[in-house]
Amino acid sequence: MNKVNIAEKFSAFTEYWSPKIAGELNGQQVKLVKFKGPFIWHYHEHEDELFYVVKGSFTMEFRDKNVEINEGEFIIVPKGVEHKPDAKDEVWIMLFEPASTLNTGNTENELTKKELDIV
Amino acid sequence: MNKVNIAEKFSAFTEYWSPKIAGELNGQQVKLVKFKGPFIWHYHEHEDELFYVVKGSFTMEFRDKNVEINEGEFIIVPKGVEHKPDAKDEVWIMLFEPASTLNTGNTENELTKKELDIV
Repeated sequence: MNKVNIAEKFSAFTEYWSPKIAGELNGQQVKLVKFKGPFIWHYHEHEDELFYVVKGSFTMEFRDKNVEINEGEFIIVPKGVEHKPDAKDEVWIMLFEPASTLNTGNTENELTKKELDIV
Repeated sequence: MNKVNIAEKFSAFTEYWSPKIAGELNGQQVKLVKFKGPFIWHYHEHEDELFYVVKGSFTMEFRDKNVEINEGEFIIVPKGVEHKPDAKDEVWIMLFEPASTLNTGNTENELTKKELDIV
C-alpha cells in the first residue's frame, strides 16, 4: 500500500513499446509505456484496452478513422478492434488492461513483450 | 471508440463523493469523483480499488498509517483493507475498479451511491 508516482516511474526507463508493470488489481494491470513512431496493426481477442496519455500526444489509427489523443485524455479500444498507435514524438501512456494482455495482441513478432518488468 | 477528456468531464459536475462513470472495460469501470473533506471508514470485501489523483491532493488514512497522494500519483487499496480518504481541499480522482464496487464498501449509509451517472 505504497503510492506510485507516475513521473518518477517514467524516468526509470527509456525504451519504447516496452510496457512496465506499475500496479495490479482485480486481475488487471496498470502498465506504463513510452511510444515513439508507428507501431503495428493488431487487435486483442479477449481484452479491452485503455490508453491514458500522461504526457504528449499520439494518434490511434483504426481501419475507418484516426483519433488524436492528447495529454489528460484516454481511449478504450474494445476487444477485437484493430488498432495501430502512432506517435510523432515521444508520448507517455498509462495502460489499464487484464494481466493477460500481450502488447502486440494477435500479431506476435519481434515487438512482442511476454515477460514484463515491474517498474 | 471516442476519446474522453478528463478535465472536460470533471467540469461537468460539482458534487463531492459522487462517482461518475467515464468508461467501462473488462468488467471494470473508470469513475471520476471529486473529494472534499473527510469520508468514512470502510473496506471493500471483494474489490481492490485504484485512486489516481488528476488534480490536487488528499490523504488516504489507514488504521496504521496515513499516505498523502499528490497529483500524478496513484495508490491501490487491496480488498479487505480499511481506508478513509480525507481531502483538505477539493481533489479530482480517477478510480479504476470493478463495476460492482460501492463507494462506501461495507458501510451503507446516506453517502452510499448505488446508481451512478455516466459523465
